[in-house]
Amino acid sequence: MAFQDKKLINNPNDVVTEFIEGLVETYPGLQYLDGFPQVKVVLRADVSGGTYHKVAVISGGGSGHEPAHAGFVGEGMLTAAICGDVFASPPVDSILAGIRAVTGPMGCLLIVKNYTGDRLNFGLAAEQAKSEGYKVETVIVGDDCALPPPRGIAGRRGLAGTILVHKIAGAAAATGISLADVAVEARRASEMVGTMGVALSVCTLPGQVTPDRLGPGKMELGLGIHGEPGAAVADLQPVDVIVSHVLKQILSPETNYVPITRGSRVVLMVNGLGATPAMELMITSGKAVPKLQLEHGLAVDRVYTGSFMTSLDMAGFSISIMKADQAILQRLDAPTKAPYWPVGVDGNHPPAKIPVPLPPSHSTKIDEPLGRPAQLNEQGHILEVAIEAAANAVQNLRDELNDWDSKVGDGDCGSTMYRGAAAILEDMKNYPLNDAAETVNEIGASIRRVMGGTSGILCTIFCKAAYAQLKASTQSVVTSKNWAEALEASIAAVSKYGGASAGYRTLLDALIPASAILQERLNAGDDPATAFILSSEAAVAGADSTKHMQAQAGRSSYVSGEILASVPDPGAVAAASWYKAAALAVKNKYQAP
Amino acid sequence: MAFQDKKLINNPNDVVTEFIEGLVETYPGLQYLDGFPQVKVVLRADVSGGTYHKVAVISGGGSGHEPAHAGFVGEGMLTAAICGDVFASPPVDSILAGIRAVTGPMGCLLIVKNYTGDRLNFGLAAEQAKSEGYKVETVIVGDDCALPPPRGIAGRRGLAGTILVHKIAGAAAATGISLADVAVEARRASEMVGTMGVALSVCTLPGQVTPDRLGPGKMELGLGIHGEPGAAVADLQPVDVIVSHVLKQILSPETNYVPITRGSRVVLMVNGLGATPAMELMITSGKAVPKLQLEHGLAVDRVYTGSFMTSLDMAGFSISIMKADQAILQRLDAPTKAPYWPVGVDGNHPPAKIPVPLPPSHSTKIDEPLGRPAQLNEQGHILEVAIEAAANAVQNLRDELNDWDSKVGDGDCGSTMYRGAAAILEDMKNYPLNDAAETVNEIGASIRRVMGGTSGILCTIFCKAAYAQLKASTQSVVTSKNWAEALEASIAAVSKYGGASAGYRTLLDALIPASAILQERLNAGDDPATAFILSSEAAVAGADSTKHMQAQAGRSSYVSGEILASVPDPGAVAAASWYKAAALAVKNKYQAP
Repeated sequence: MAFQDKKLINNPNDVVTEFIEGLVETYPGLQYLDGFPQVKVVLRADVSGGTYHKVAVISGGGSGHEPAHAGFVGEGMLTAAICGDVFASPPVDSILAGIRAVTGPMGCLLIVKNYTGDRLNFGLAAEQAKSEGYKVETVIVGDDCALPPPRGIAGRRGLAGTILVHKIAGAAAATGISLADVAVEARRASEMVGTMGVALSVCTLPGQVTPDRLGPGKMELGLGIHGEPGAAVADLQPVDVIVSHVLKQILSPETNYVPITRGSRVVLMVNGLGATPAMELMITSGKAVPKLQLEHGLAVDRVYTGSFMTSLDMAGFSISIMKADQAILQRLDAPTKAPYWPVGVDGNHPPAKIPVPLPPSHSTKIDEPLGRPAQLNEQGHILEVAIEAAANAVQNLRDELNDWDSKVGDGDCGSTMYRGAAAILEDMKNYPLNDAAETVNEIGASIRRVMGGTSGILCTIFCKAAYAQLKASTQSVVTSKNWAEALEASIAAVSKYGGASAGYRTLLDALIPASAILQERLNAGDDPATAFILSSEAAVAGADSTKHMQAQAGRSSYVSGEILASVPDPGAVAAASWYKAAALAVKNKYQAP
Repeated sequence: MAFQDKKLINNPNDVVTEFIEGLVETYPGLQYLDGFPQVKVVLRADVSGGTYHKVAVISGGGSGHEPAHAGFVGEGMLTAAICGDVFASPPVDSILAGIRAVTGPMGCLLIVKNYTGDRLNFGLAAEQAKSEGYKVETVIVGDDCALPPPRGIAGRRGLAGTILVHKIAGAAAATGISLADVAVEARRASEMVGTMGVALSVCTLPGQVTPDRLGPGKMELGLGIHGEPGAAVADLQPVDVIVSHVLKQILSPETNYVPITRGSRVVLMVNGLGATPAMELMITSGKAVPKLQLEHGLAVDRVYTGSFMTSLDMAGFSISIMKADQAILQRLDAPTKAPYWPVGVDGNHPPAKIPVPLPPSHSTKIDEPLGRPAQLNEQGHILEVAIEAAANAVQNLRDELNDWDSKVGDGDCGSTMYRGAAAILEDMKNYPLNDAAETVNEIGASIRRVMGGTSGILCTIFCKAAYAQLKASTQSVVTSKNWAEALEASIAAVSKYGGASAGYRTLLDALIPASAILQERLNAGDDPATAFILSSEAAVAGADSTKHMQAQAGRSSYVSGEILASVPDPGAVAAASWYKAAALAVKNKYQAP
């Protein structure tokens, strides 16, 4: 794969020590032994070998599998992790240093993935530690299910199932039981788990360029965690199909690798290999669980989804299945401070989904218009003429708005607004005009029905905010003060959600001065009709002033100042126009005989 | 990037719903609303809007940022997450369904990343919910520090800093305080945090093929989380250099985006963008902390390292820095059940590193030979002749062993063994021969000094296991029974760590029958010298029998049975030879006048 050699590192030889430094900066519960670069050991900061009164659980191996193994150090899981160089077994002296640092009189258990280098180095360290008087037990984990038996001396590889063995051993040790008993639990766990991996790409070692041996559209089945080739290359399939194949392989009665049969209880681990996004891992888990239940007749007690045992930047996953019983679940569920052990996976599953709640009963069902009242009251009459006048004013502006918009935008402002106004005029025969709040809400619904994009949703927000304000503040009749508050709430909502303020060359430059004048005149005691007229004149002046403003939004922000100066903002003009038309209509209605 | 379109998914249109299904299978504390595909809402399984007595904290936005936002749902963090399609804002009805599902009389806080679509859709939903009687507050987060101000209406983008705002708001809400107070804390937090991203690759939308606009060796600085181009493309640098640049940009006094000055306390978040291995993220954190401390004069109170707010499969990271004080730290440290909030990051840092422990005082310092005693006792004399005889026997076999090995292995067995024997003969003038256990240990050290590879370490393990057993079981003088136990322990260790058993065509096929006969003869009351001779004859017979065995290890396992039948295993022959030579020497010594 091209460019896979790109890594966020410094000197490729320092990746492991620098990883450990970052890990310890992140997690104050962890420390490391001051022996870089040879000795790379991460240990619990609260454990000192001389005084530790429980069995220490130690694991490790080559690096490149982060967060394994150091990320699983913490009370209730590993006591120390021995980190080799990338994909290289740690040296004996490093392992020995780790054993000495955390092992007290209860002894230590070494959990070793089944690779020759790890077996030998951990083995020699174990024998040396024993000769120093330490109690040491070793459990070797080989959970790979990809290759058919017999395997000879090499045996099955250790893969992500080892993480589950770490957890079980760590939880057992935390209870204070003896080394022999911890080893028995760890060994039993290692015999209960099977794993198989699938990769979409190979991994690249730091400082190296690795040609991708996989072609486009190919995947590799049954690979190891060090970039070693898999058992087979196949065409990439939907993950559904891959999961089915992998589960069958792990649970195969021919290889009989895991003692799992129909009716067994199991835990599932879906493990990312380093460059696999959480989305894909979760999709895998979501498919694996029902397959285990329905196709294999198993009860799935726990699901662990995440990147636990990786292969540097490899894309792909492994699936591990462990036979579970009450004893194993108790160990898996036991609390731990290991930072990378997943939290929140225990407990009984409630129903996965619950019904979408209906709108609360105290609200109006928005999809069912209240309908026009048989008889309009005075307010209803006034509202009707104001809406009609406003909508007509917008429609009359269509060509002029389009013309301006073609100079500073995409040229459809007039047509879009016309469409909204037409929808209002069409729908208003069903508006509940005696209820001003609900009518405003219906206007918003009409606009939303025909106007898409940012302008449509902003108009709807404008109406919805006015509606909420009118509903909250209005008693029986809507007062001019209520309207002024509604206008203010609408401006606030459009400004907040749309992001514009005064001077941004938007419709707010018409409405903000209008709102200010309206409140000022009403507070000064003007009669409402006059106050609205003065307010609407402020809106018109405000719209005109947008000629001198720099655009901050949309396409206008790319237009030269010279062109902008020749036209006002079409949205602001439209707002001023409908507002003025409505104000005039209200005034005429009041002054009508 | 080639093949980036390879994903572990099914139908690209279903990725979000299938992610949610897997998430809920993994975490029993989470549920989702039964409204697929339009309504994609993940919520706490223990919260029902009708009865919830705290402020609900809701976030969301386009998907493709997993684990954000659904992975941060849980007590103490988000109450619900609204998931749009990949990189698309969720529709108003979906947001509204989420609000209704979890909002009780205390109201809800919407935390929205600053993108037009999210602002408008969450805004309209908020206004609708208000009109239904819900108390709703909205906080919009724009933490991007990559681009220079002024930004006009769009403002700064919302990036990974939003996760910290989620945590602070969620922890505040968990204490039971009012909506207004929760909103104040969230808004304040959003003003304290700045973020900048760096990418090594673009992301690929499910079902699409995206050409990588970055060339080899290039990185992109200051990008968004939807694959939108960054502020600049530059040559890839060591992460050390990248981190310095990013920190300077975030903390720039010119933009003054975050109110952080020399002496401030801060928290650091290093966030992976989806395909970045934990190793690289930790290296980044490990470099960022000392830079913040030393170059910027800041105290780093917490470090959060992980993949929190991703961009599908993008390789890269973002760094967020938030100004911290006691109030903010208290919220960040408060417990939460949100599965993806990192654990174990709070608390005071102990020293990062501690000294490598010395070997315990009750053990011998292995690097300093005890030295040859001034006077050899009887046992010392016998040991000396036995070792000399054994080493000579191995040296005499060099050419024969090489010859056999060239047929079944890599042809150097004789030379390798010769080298080991020579080292023993050279070192033995300093062996503490009156102490059999320590002498055996020194033999192991001599071998280890010159013999590499699997055979060298297995020989060392052999000696180390014998040493530990002799030390544990021996009183003043080593008895023949002690030697028999030591041989048994050595065989067990080599078998365990090397992986071979009887019949695997290895040196064990000489030693296992030798051990059996030795114990049998000693138990039968034979005199020790005779028992060793009979045992050594069993070793020779065992070595010869390897001709008829199938190889299980190393290169021999690829050799045809016909060739294998013509030669014995060289390692087994060597073991039988030195064992027989030693036994004869011991017998002669005893029988000497």
